Amino acid sequence: MWKCDFTIYDMIARNAGLYGGKSAIIYGDKRISFLEYQELCDQCAASLIKEGLTTGDRIAILSGNCEDFMILSGAAAKIGAVMVAVNFRLGEGEIEYILKDTQPKFFFSSNDYKDIAYKVSSAVPSIQKFYVFKLKENEGDFIPFAKLLSADDCAMQQMMFPGSNQAYMIIHTAAVAGKPRGCVLSQSNILAVGLQMASMFELTSRDCHVGTLPLFHIGGFSMSIAVMHQGGGNVIMDRFDPVMVLKQLEKEQGTFFGTFPPMLAAILDAQEKQSINASSLRGVGGMDSPDTIEKFLKRNPKATFYSLYGQTEAMPISGCDVKDKPGSIGRPGIMTRVAIFDDLDQEVPVGEQGEICVRSPSVFLGYLNMEKETAYTSRNGWHHTGDRGRLDKEGYLYYCGRNPEKELIKPGGENVYPAEVEKAVLDHADVKEVSVIGVPDPQWGEAVLAVCVLEKGAELKDTELIEFVASKIARYKKPKHVVFVDTLPKKANGEIDREEVKKIYSGMKWK
Amino acid sequence: MWKCDFTIYDMIARNAGLYGGKSAIIYGDKRISFLEYQELCDQCAASLIKEGLTTGDRIAILSGNCEDFMILSGAAAKIGAVMVAVNFRLGEGEIEYILKDTQPKFFFSSNDYKDIAYKVSSAVPSIQKFYVFKLKENEGDFIPFAKLLSADDCAMQQMMFPGSNQAYMIIHTAAVAGKPRGCVLSQSNILAVGLQMASMFELTSRDCHVGTLPLFHIGGFSMSIAVMHQGGGNVIMDRFDPVMVLKQLEKEQGTFFGTFPPMLAAILDAQEKQSINASSLRGVGGMDSPDTIEKFLKRNPKATFYSLYGQTEAMPISGCDVKDKPGSIGRPGIMTRVAIFDDLDQEVPVGEQGEICVRSPSVFLGYLNMEKETAYTSRNGWHHTGDRGRLDKEGYLYYCGRNPEKELIKPGGENVYPAEVEKAVLDHADVKEVSVIGVPDPQWGEAVLAVCVLEKGAELKDTELIEFVASKIARYKKPKHVVFVDTLPKKANGEIDREEVKKIYSGMKWK
Repeated sequence: MWKCDFTIYDMIARNAGLYGGKSAIIYGDKRISFLEYQELCDQCAASLIKEGLTTGDRIAILSGNCEDFMILSGAAAKIGAVMVAVNFRLGEGEIEYILKDTQPKFFFSSNDYKDIAYKVSSAVPSIQKFYVFKLKENEGDFIPFAKLLSADDCAMQQMMFPGSNQAYMIIHTAAVAGKPRGCVLSQSNILAVGLQMASMFELTSRDCHVGTLPLFHIGGFSMSIAVMHQGGGNVIMDRFDPVMVLKQLEKEQGTFFGTFPPMLAAILDAQEKQSINASSLRGVGGMDSPDTIEKFLKRNPKATFYSLYGQTEAMPISGCDVKDKPGSIGRPGIMTRVAIFDDLDQEVPVGEQGEICVRSPSVFLGYLNMEKETAYTSRNGWHHTGDRGRLDKEGYLYYCGRNPEKELIKPGGENVYPAEVEKAVLDHADVKEVSVIGVPDPQWGEAVLAVCVLEKGAELKDTELIEFVASKIARYKKPKHVVFVDTLPKKANGEIDREEVKKIYSGMKWK
Repeated sequence: MWKCDFTIYDMIARNAGLYGGKSAIIYGDKRISFLEYQELCDQCAASLIKEGLTTGDRIAILSGNCEDFMILSGAAAKIGAVMVAVNFRLGEGEIEYILKDTQPKFFFSSNDYKDIAYKVSSAVPSIQKFYVFKLKENEGDFIPFAKLLSADDCAMQQMMFPGSNQAYMIIHTAAVAGKPRGCVLSQSNILAVGLQMASMFELTSRDCHVGTLPLFHIGGFSMSIAVMHQGGGNVIMDRFDPVMVLKQLEKEQGTFFGTFPPMLAAILDAQEKQSINASSLRGVGGMDSPDTIEKFLKRNPKATFYSLYGQTEAMPISGCDVKDKPGSIGRPGIMTRVAIFDDLDQEVPVGEQGEICVRSPSVFLGYLNMEKETAYTSRNGWHHTGDRGRLDKEGYLYYCGRNPEKELIKPGGENVYPAEVEKAVLDHADVKEVSVIGVPDPQWGEAVLAVCVLEKGAELKDTELIEFVASKIARYKKPKHVVFVDTLPKKANGEIDREEVKKIYSGMKWK
């Protein structure tokens, strides 16, 4: 018996045969056809092998979105290299942690992050080479990525087939107890995510996706794969810019984009100020407040807003046209089974609350170097999301917050664990006690609030504390608001009573 | 690292949560909702375990289509039993061969095949129990299947998760050199086939599939799975009857069916004679002559005819709306990469002919008990179909016949290898030499022609020889036409020159 495989590179090769001269990737004025895309991946794969990379080796990427990211990901799929996709908004200490955790061999970055990449790599001896996207010529240890796209002979790996169930991409999610967890995803996982999204959003070869989300996140990367499955086009943009999104929608007749707060509101705002024709837009997938979505749909009546729920470990878990069931986060898509479990892993009756659990080929392979956490998350054959929810009789899912031990704040779609922020706040000599919670935020969906008790006699401004935290961890994790209080509510055992803190402070109004 | 699984039973459970009271399976006046379908599968699975079946055990099925077949297949998916799906049109010797090849533990049959099942099992000691669909009460060794649907407690296997990449279904295809080959398919294979068909035929939960094809074939079974993926309904019919197909289309507002010659012509014929409203029909998938398809589309202008190409080993390989590219057999669907290889497994340039090779998660696990054949078919990471074809610049595939060593005749969608028929013909004492070839047939697409040289002085009628062959192998393999000749063309080495035989005799006209 054997198992016939199908990798992301197989999809790229398939598309070259089916869609040939059609644009696969658009970056500024550059258009890469499906045929050219395969050729570039072949070039890059052949060069990487020549430079010493082999199946199973890891490569780190610290970069904004660009077409080179997509080429590198296709080449990695062909030879079975493992991409460590690093969020460029992380602090240096966090990036260093990820590099030590993954031990990459080559480091790829864009020009604006190459110096950070170099600096943090000094403590990671596994890194042998530094490639820089769009660099014109060698600069010290920095090698232009373009040099990997000029191989004479690409035939060498024609018969190389890495396993699609092997590790392909590692994306670190928010730190639990100070340790970011590396989610390991296979090519099969990501192909499944793409298929499920393509089905959920009813994508076809006529779709053109304007890439608003970062490629280092599962959402942005797999959205591009979803569009590719169907032979649609991907417009790649360096970074999110609402006016640029509108201009690309008009120029490329874009039909779809992904969104997390505050992106949709910003686009809506730009639409009010600019006269750009975005009438080709057919759908938007992601999340936002009902108010913003309603305004957006009023302004763009031909578009559908698809609510989407998922996490790096399992994406998408559910989704639907937001109008189908207001308040819900949608239904599980094809090849996705969702159940709600109680603490003993028994399914609860329809309508009751419990932990959202999933079985699907899109569920990740596990946390890197964390066997116990992986075994716990995957116990009894189900992926345990750590989110609480309930199902209705039609299979629609409702989100009911995080499991207490996995409490999470989500400003602008990023994951922030309170424990990590609390640790950084407590590093300040003037702070005696702190409790960090999420509060509603009109712009970002949610914001970080630190409720602090200062040391006797200490004087500290909120802005000082915020900057102090921002110097320690990723800036998006810093508190947006700080409240100084005399005492924090406590439980009988002396622990801070987080639920009580939430009751008292989460309703406060912020300007 | 782990691998989160998703089985056919997971899909059934998912559907119960999403589509609850909607009809999943319709058989005559019986309607089984998605919720009931899961319950029946649970009942059956619990009973099978109680009766001594365990993961990896094989069960044989010899039956026309019925709802019990679907329930049994869901139960088998839940506990990881392996279904041996036997074509009831095979001869007793062929069925016995399949049973010996697979060593099943339980034998399931419909009432009309239970006696054959019992008879051929006498030589297969592995078979312990005989279950009969729709049997009212025990008859000797025959046990009513319904007894498996009355378990008190189904909770026992709640945490049982057989691997979706393990064997799930064994379907024997035509004999090469007298040995039918058992194609082993996993649940993942069949889920992938279903997904690919669902995508190709643009199925949704609004679709209602009228099941014209036998469930013991990959086409019929996976078409039902395709519809289930999307929450559509499956109308199950005992056997193909053109008037019944039309009546079900009208009664159930059917939207889709599968077809192989001569089914479509028969349906068209019935449409001319009956006034049945089939206006709900949206699509038909399969193959037929351009002439019949054109007539059908003229009569049913709202319907699309999807050309479909595949084999038990890999389904679907390609497909498209027949109007897209007349003469082609379509393009590879999602998650399917097709390449044309020369004899050295090198890809040939676009437009040139060679062997059609495939990479896809729908490709089977291999031939049962035939390691060498499996290794040969899957060499270099590609499934080798044995079919010849070419691709055009847009990725459309054109069929160019069988590889000479794998020559195949396809009357009515069944596979007939000339070598097998030749062997049966030569068993007749009066026949000295024979060459069996396929000839075009207006009703069945293709028909079997035997060109024979008789022993000196022998006298034999064509009808006698045809009946003789039919008593040896499946009736659909018997020659439809026989020609007696004095000599057959030979190659230099004395072998019969099949290509020359084809040139001379395949153009003959048959009444």
